[in-house]
This record gives sequence, C-alpha cells and structure tokens, in this order.
Amino acid sequence: MTDQATADLWPGERTGERPEAARRLLLAAVDSFARRGYHATTTRDIATAAGMSPAALYIHYPSKAALLSEISRTGHQATLNLVEHAARSDSDPVAQMRLLVEDFTAWHARGHTVGRIVNHELHALPDEDFEVVAELRRRIEETVKAVIDTGVASGAFDVPDVRTAARAVTSLGIDVSRWYTDRSSETPEELGRRYGILVLRMLGATG
Amino acid sequence: MTDQATADLWPGERTGERPEAARRLLLAAVDSFARRGYHATTTRDIATAAGMSPAALYIHYPSKAALLSEISRTGHQATLNLVEHAARSDSDPVAQMRLLVEDFTAWHARGHTVGRIVNHELHALPDEDFEVVAELRRRIEETVKAVIDTGVASGAFDVPDVRTAARAVTSLGIDVSRWYTDRSSETPEELGRRYGILVLRMLGATG
Repeated sequence: MTDQATADLWPGERTGERPEAARRLLLAAVDSFARRGYHATTTRDIATAAGMSPAALYIHYPSKAALLSEISRTGHQATLNLVEHAARSDSDPVAQMRLLVEDFTAWHARGHTVGRIVNHELHALPDEDFEVVAELRRRIEETVKAVIDTGVASGAFDVPDVRTAARAVTSLGIDVSRWYTDRSSETPEELGRRYGILVLRMLGATG
Repeated sequence: MTDQATADLWPGERTGERPEAARRLLLAAVDSFARRGYHATTTRDIATAAGMSPAALYIHYPSKAALLSEISRTGHQATLNLVEHAARSDSDPVAQMRLLVEDFTAWHARGHTVGRIVNHELHALPDEDFEVVAELRRRIEETVKAVIDTGVASGAFDVPDVRTAARAVTSLGIDVSRWYTDRSSETPEELGRRYGILVLRMLGATG
C-alpha cells in the first residue's frame, strides 16, 4: 500500500516525463523493499506487485539496484529541496531552523516507509549512484551547518561544536522514519513543531 | 569481523553458561546480518561464517529467527542496563541524564554493527520474541522519561512535552548506530560527551 508521501515523490499527473509503468514500478519497489528488505526482494516480486512481467520491468529499469538508486536519489533530493527552501525562507536563522526542522521531521514521519529505504539501504547502492546520493547528503548537512553558522555569528545560537550539532539535527529528523508509524499519537506536523522547539533549545537559541 | 562491542555482549570467558559454539554462531550471525541484511542471510551463511555445518547450527538454534531474537534481546538488555545504571548513579537528575546520554550514545557508536541489527530488524522477530523486546524498549523509554519527570519536578529541567523529549533522547542515541563508522572523526566517548551537552540544553537544564 503506497502512502501519500511516497506517491508524492513520483506524481502521476506530470504527463510525458515518466511513463506510468515506470511510476508503478517505483511504487511497487518501495512497497517490496519495505516489506522484505532490499536484499531479499527480487525483480520478479517488484514486477508482480506492479502487475507486470519481469520482462516488462527490464524495459524501464535494468536492475533492482537501478530502482533503489532512483528511489534514493528522489528521496534525498526531496529532503534537500525542503532544507534549502527553509534556509532561504527568512533572514532570521532561528526562523530558518524552526521551519527546517518542522518540515524535515514531518517529511520523515509522513514518508516513513520511503525514508527507511532511503536511509537504511545506502550500502546496497552501486558505487556511482552512492556517490550521487552521498553528494546530496553532504549538501543537506552543509545547509543545516550553514544555518547554524549564521546563527552563531549573529549571536542567535550558542553552539560548542557546530558539526556535531548539525549532525544531531539531521539525525533526529532522519530517525523519525525508523520509529514513526501511522499509529503514532502525534501527527507529522505536531511532531515537527515539538522537534522544532527542542532543536532551537539544543542550539541555545535566545529569545 | 567482530567489533569489541559485539564481542562484549557474549563474553567468551564466562564458563559453563553458553557453549563456545553458540557464541561463535551469534557473532557470525551479527556479521552476516550486517553484511547482507537479515532476510537475505541463510542459516548456511551463518554456519559457514562460524566454521560449522548447518546441522551443527541447528543443535544450538532452531532457526535464523532464534539467532536474531537472542541478538536483539541481548542488545536491548545491555542498553537497558546502562540506562538503569545511569538513573541510579546520582541523586541529581542532571547528572543522571548526562551519564545516561554519554553511555547510551557511546554504546551505539562502539556497537554500531549490532546496534543497527537490533534497531532495524525488529519487524523480522517472531511475535513472542518481539513482545519481549518491545517490553525492554518500553522500560528504556520509561526510565528516560522518569529521569526527565524527576528533573521537571525539581525544576532542574523545563520540558514542554516529556514524552516527546524522552523519545528524542533515545532516538538521538539509537540513530548513532546508523551513521557512525569506525572512520568517524569523533571517538564514541567524545560523541557521548557532546551529545550529553546538547541533550541537557534540549531539556532546558539550568546551571
């Protein structure tokens, strides 16, 4: 069953860009990887879940790894986009960081299924694709670090070690996809707001 | 290759308690699950890694799931022990929380291999074993929450939502096992100290 956050990663209505069959394969791959783990999933499992033959899968993706790579790239690009958007949203680093944590947290709660795959199956990526994803991860980390640096420079934040603090901020958000379930008592947005408050305190935000 | 933290979970020198062959199987299972993922690992892979036949494995463990269950129980019990130890270590909730985060973080850094299995393969546990592990997880969470509650009552902490704060504390520590590698620039102990400072700020610790 595809959740909304996963479906949103590959919108069906954008005509022309991606054949509907490729989209169905991506959603089926997310579902199969989440259910069985990447290594134990076969291309036949994915094709069957998408209502297609293995031969039809290969028209769109040469391998299971190619599907994982596209899922991982798309998921990382989506989180990089929202982090960069938050960093540009306001001139005040406190407001930037609040929005960043709220959106990053809520994304990993809503998209916990795809978030788990994207963050826990990195080692399974082919080397070249791993490098692409590693670069997206570095940019996420660097953007978070830049917001903290700006806040430290302006006196809005007081942080003994910026790199560790940036790591803690992204880690808190990413780990939401491990523990969050659709039965969790907080909505993704509530959790985002609460985490926003906790992180600002962690960064010694004043005012 | 077995890291020290994993080896420490099943000390070889405790005579009588556990046959050496069972210990070798547990260490081989940790290694195999980490390398290939739980689902793609066969009992033959584990037996081979332990230098044994599949038949010899079955003398000690009826299934791959039984090995995962013992690994998961032992790992969770070890972290519960250190969390409970920290909660008893001092009468001051600030000192309790500092030690708790330092030890919990350092454990997940040193034991990142077993920490990943213990936290990411929960869904693969047989129902009964899952219940045992879920109870250990509840006790970890409850112990963290109790330390925060005590601090809030004494005025040492100022926390808007204790349950979310407790979740954030354990989540930060657990996620260390996802991203920490032996090439990380901070030692487990350094990371523990830095996380201790960040968490105390998050909890609004005074003084």
